Amino acid sequence: MHAPQSELPDIAADVLARLRERSPRVHCITNSVAQAFTANMLLAAGCVPSMTVSPDEVAAFVARSGALLVNLGTFDAERRAAVDLAIEEAGDEGVPWALDPVFIDRAPARAAYARTLVERHPRALRLNRAELAALADGESDDEAAARYAVAQLTVVGVSGKVDVVTDGTRQFGIANGDALMGRVTAMGCAASALVAACLAVEEDALVATAAGLIAIGVAGEVAAARAGGPGTFAAAIIDGIYHLDRETIRMRARVT
Amino acid sequence: MHAPQSELPDIAADVLARLRERSPRVHCITNSVAQAFTANMLLAAGCVPSMTVSPDEVAAFVARSGALLVNLGTFDAERRAAVDLAIEEAGDEGVPWALDPVFIDRAPARAAYARTLVERHPRALRLNRAELAALADGESDDEAAARYAVAQLTVVGVSGKVDVVTDGTRQFGIANGDALMGRVTAMGCAASALVAACLAVEEDALVATAAGLIAIGVAGEVAAARAGGPGTFAAAIIDGIYHLDRETIRMRARVT
Amino acid sequence: MHAPQSELPDIAADVLARLRERSPRVHCITNSVAQAFTANMLLAAGCVPSMTVSPDEVAAFVARSGALLVNLGTFDAERRAAVDLAIEEAGDEGVPWALDPVFIDRAPARAAYARTLVERHPRALRLNRAELAALADGESDDEAAARYAVAQLTVVGVSGKVDVVTDGTRQFGIANGDALMGRVTAMGCAASALVAACLAVEEDALVATAAGLIAIGVAGEVAAARAGGPGTFAAAIIDGIYHLDRETIRMRARVT
Repeated sequence: MHAPQSELPDIAADVLARLRERSPRVHCITNSVAQAFTANMLLAAGCVPSMTVSPDEVAAFVARSGALLVNLGTFDAERRAAVDLAIEEAGDEGVPWALDPVFIDRAPARAAYARTLVERHPRALRLNRAELAALADGESDDEAAARYAVAQLTVVGVSGKVDVVTDGTRQFGIANGDALMGRVTAMGCAASALVAACLAVEEDALVATAAGLIAIGVAGEVAAARAGGPGTFAAAIIDGIYHLDRETIRMRARVT
Repeated sequence: MHAPQSELPDIAADVLARLRERSPRVHCITNSVAQAFTANMLLAAGCVPSMTVSPDEVAAFVARSGALLVNLGTFDAERRAAVDLAIEEAGDEGVPWALDPVFIDRAPARAAYARTLVERHPRALRLNRAELAALADGESDDEAAARYAVAQLTVVGVSGKVDVVTDGTRQFGIANGDALMGRVTAMGCAASALVAACLAVEEDALVATAAGLIAIGVAGEVAAARAGGPGTFAAAIIDGIYHLDRETIRMRARVT
Repeated sequence: MHAPQSELPDIAADVLARLRERSPRVHCITNSVAQAFTANMLLAAGCVPSMTVSPDEVAAFVARSGALLVNLGTFDAERRAAVDLAIEEAGDEGVPWALDPVFIDRAPARAAYARTLVERHPRALRLNRAELAALADGESDDEAAARYAVAQLTVVGVSGKVDVVTDGTRQFGIANGDALMGRVTAMGCAASALVAACLAVEEDALVATAAGLIAIGVAGEVAAARAGGPGTFAAAIIDGIYHLDRETIRMRARVT
């Protein structure tokens, strides 16, 4: 992408419009806590979610999908088997995939496993600062993000007060969102699912990752204005994604 | 049932009233994406859901339930073992059961498995057109529905713009619902759960299936009038089932 | 606790304030139906939920958590393995834990298993009357609650129109809540999660258990005043926990 940051909101709106036009299927290997919220977020964005983790059929589901999400939220033996088959199939079929290494800062076995997945070249890696630190072995966040981006051919999206998206060369900051997003389970998982969805309709993984994060951040701001707390916010942000339009994105997206 | 279609809304209201009076327990072997929404839908209708898939106890749960739902949404080895035990117990105890062969159009192994389940005579088979086509091996939808209905002693409910319900002899169309129902995950699964619930209190499986589909279709229309998008709609349709009364059903049900 | 019942609302408000200040992580081994709702309830109360059941990492998660919840809602081989590891780790690390023996009145194998867990001394046991009866082998509810409390060094919280909380010596009744709470799946599971959370910040398990049950009961009353049915109620009670303040607790808590 040669566009400057000022054009990114419009480009993000284009990507979201393509989701609604093309309705890509997004296969999600995600944790059981996040499944329903993630599926509803994808449906609201115009996509078709599928969620099976059965080793008997995960490859068939991935082969015909537009993108794959691998989320480690409740990782277990069955999900690991599914992840392995799914990533292999995605590689064979040219299906782009995104990795969300949830909670790898909480258990060493999970961090070690995540490192092996990063080496298999996800097109996007979405995580928070603590998770990046767990991957990074003592580097600073920025160094780690850049190193992963360059070495792994992967775009890194780091969530925080300001999200940072980089492919090792280009970098954007996205200063959208609302504090209530941290009070709803699976919000990060749903953000990663939107990133995966955008990969299905946008070749440039940096743009796709930024578009997904802009979408959920802006929808979160719209939802916060309507919600009475985190319970009603969880429904309102899905409404927000469903109604998200170019004008709202232009008005609210804060890209640096 | 010898009643004409014009009486079906009132008969459906009777069935729903019986759910509230008798509070049948409905055991659901369903996918993890759908479990919470399905349980909440059943609770709103006055039923008691149970959801275990553990082979150690599924038979005990089914034996004392009013109806069984078998949903293939995230089928895996454990769920298949549970399904086998559950259907056998349902047969022994005379517990009626409904089958929802979710997504069998996406993976051949799943379609083959679904065919073996249809042969075990569910009282109702609820699915969409793509799923019916995957079962049907090249027949037209109507032929397939009729053939399954006749050969398997099973009522077939096919969801679509107009739902079609048939037992191979009698047939109804139900033209209720709202487009937002397609934007909430597990909506079809919840519809199938309501169908299963109605089987617990209504001998005539054609009537039970129609009652379940009328209920969710009408509740969907009521909810759409109140919702701000698919997130708030998911809550509103549960409210709609909870408050659904004879007058609303009479006013809104469109049966042909 | 030497405080009389009249001081319990204020003490409960103190406990809830500590949850928001300290944000304890609460590890929940709970059923897949309840996971998302439970996580959202804990987040609304200011806690950090974690939910893995993988035997490879559950001990690591428990070791660094503030409290553990063991819920038997969909008990299966994997969850049982996780429970065993988790309780052992909790004992070693001094992490308090709460047990919610969901639906043990529905299957004998589950009741037998629950008895083995009670013998491992949870700090709190939260259940309903039918579940207590299944544990109790023919004793009256009050006898059973008292016996468990005394013999097992466990506080027993029995949900009902009036919740009863006892440590075998002291006893409180809590007459809060709303009928809609019985129409939302996992409401009891979420109550138990709040009890577990309170154990993380309050040494006196009787006070912690009472605080958790007061919180959800009062939030339920606030939510019922705003909800249009059980669907919107489920979101509203999470908002209610999020906003729950000392004044509302003082005004509404009915402790006897």
